[in-house]
Amino acid sequence: MLALYFDGKLELKELDRPQPGPGEVLIQVHLAGVCRTDLEVLRGYQGFRGVPGHEFLGTVAGPQDSPWLGRRVVGEINVSCLECDQCRLGLTNHCRRRLVLGLKGRDGAFAQYLTLPARNLHPVPPEMPNEVAVFTEPLAAALGVLAAAPPIPPATRVLVVGDGSLGLQTSWVLARHGAAVHLAGHHPEHLRLAEPYGVTPFLEKDLPPGDYEVVVEASGAPGGLDLALARVRPQGTVVLKSTYVGRYPLDPAALVVPEVRLLGSRCGDFPEALRWLREGRVDPRPLIARTFPLAQGLEALAWAHRSGTLKVLLNCREGS
Amino acid sequence: MLALYFDGKLELKELDRPQPGPGEVLIQVHLAGVCRTDLEVLRGYQGFRGVPGHEFLGTVAGPQDSPWLGRRVVGEINVSCLECDQCRLGLTNHCRRRLVLGLKGRDGAFAQYLTLPARNLHPVPPEMPNEVAVFTEPLAAALGVLAAAPPIPPATRVLVVGDGSLGLQTSWVLARHGAAVHLAGHHPEHLRLAEPYGVTPFLEKDLPPGDYEVVVEASGAPGGLDLALARVRPQGTVVLKSTYVGRYPLDPAALVVPEVRLLGSRCGDFPEALRWLREGRVDPRPLIARTFPLAQGLEALAWAHRSGTLKVLLNCREGS
Repeated sequence: MLALYFDGKLELKELDRPQPGPGEVLIQVHLAGVCRTDLEVLRGYQGFRGVPGHEFLGTVAGPQDSPWLGRRVVGEINVSCLECDQCRLGLTNHCRRRLVLGLKGRDGAFAQYLTLPARNLHPVPPEMPNEVAVFTEPLAAALGVLAAAPPIPPATRVLVVGDGSLGLQTSWVLARHGAAVHLAGHHPEHLRLAEPYGVTPFLEKDLPPGDYEVVVEASGAPGGLDLALARVRPQGTVVLKSTYVGRYPLDPAALVVPEVRLLGSRCGDFPEALRWLREGRVDPRPLIARTFPLAQGLEALAWAHRSGTLKVLLNCREGS
Repeated sequence: MLALYFDGKLELKELDRPQPGPGEVLIQVHLAGVCRTDLEVLRGYQGFRGVPGHEFLGTVAGPQDSPWLGRRVVGEINVSCLECDQCRLGLTNHCRRRLVLGLKGRDGAFAQYLTLPARNLHPVPPEMPNEVAVFTEPLAAALGVLAAAPPIPPATRVLVVGDGSLGLQTSWVLARHGAAVHLAGHHPEHLRLAEPYGVTPFLEKDLPPGDYEVVVEASGAPGGLDLALARVRPQGTVVLKSTYVGRYPLDPAALVVPEVRLLGSRCGDFPEALRWLREGRVDPRPLIARTFPLAQGLEALAWAHRSGTLKVLLNCREGS
């Protein structure tokens, strides 16, 4: 099968089709989404080697006796042992021995086929277009902000930093939740995508004075945390979504003196994301910048690298 | 009056006795405690200029018509405007225009006299020794960990990093609260002071494997946060108490991937600290390393600078 493969350098390769292990299924990937974390992987993040990619929509292609056969699915990215103390506490996303699709020890979605445990799958409602369902994983991550932060009553002043795909989806989710959301970014054409949700967008340099009860840092760059800490109100909350290679020079007094909370947030709830998509509470399709066939995957990733690009999709169907 | 004065360099000086403004009282300082933050002030922290010191016990010496006259008191360190949005929300410790005793715009306690608004005062119970009451402010800061962290059920595994005065008091408070507390430090003679409270102390290098639901970083040094983030369990909490000059090179993934919360915590509740001291739930006196007369204040601060020194007190009474 055709796949993108990273081994210090990204290549387009012909690989053996993966074999599902016990309890696993083979999935034919239809669409895969390129996430900023994938770009960080290509810069050495987490030391990953293999097929990158963790956002996908596909159809179960095996084994032949699987009750999932032929079903259109999305899949959770953490492959957990179900035996360690974390798993027994129900924190399977934080399994001590977990592998993560396209991110840690497990080949991912930038390929014609992938395997996952059947328990990781969620069926996609028949009426939901592929290019909507492929956003389940990133939308779940955006919804994770609501789970991580303290309760956010209606009209709470919230700032989202970063007008990439995750920042925009986070701003939508928070606005739909009832918060008064400001979004700070650098790309007028992205910021506009927040307006239909009642989000008030600003170029970062034009952000009005004042502080925020909650700030979500989704810029993917150290400067975003600078802004977040400067604008969160005393005893307020900063939710950190960005992962990137490199360090942020944290002034501990910036947390201690104003007694600010800095909360890491990663994954979210797939069924809830599917519900939001099915009910049309958000429509992610305006985030799609461009769809490339997998055979042009190298070009696609290079294009996604360009600053100011929203969601790049790979069409992974055979013959595409 | 005699006072220590910092103006880029610490000096012992004869200053005018301060005059209490409207609503304020004059306090004759009996004992003042040297906090690690005071030592950071001498390294440039917060750019403070004036009389340092914010931990004290004294007697109200004026004005003559004050109902507080002659009473033995401790005092809250934040001098708030009561008018800004923060104050109106009851967050007076986070007043936008606040001054802070010996830390920000307001002369502090390393002097024979200081002034504070009468509303900042708390009476000291008659039976409480001076050298106990002088710990009200730091004990309140230690108790602040209980307020900042999520509820800590009995037997929760907690690690306190740092065997200085604040780290020890924090370990005591958490153990009295019912947590299963490990304390990590570098000084066997300090670590021993935690044992009467049922805390299990370890030299940092001997800390057993395993992780903790809550880690309190009270080491006052960047390495403490390294240990805290390495040992907090996924979805666990790190309470950050340390303020110091300098930056901590934060790997954002260390918060985001395990979805850890990093909570800044500064001040605490004075009445609660006085209650704990009155009921003998903790006895801070073993923390006193040495008491110097104010006239030897320069020597006292130099001595406090030495690694491995617990609480240094200044006796500020005239003629001392």
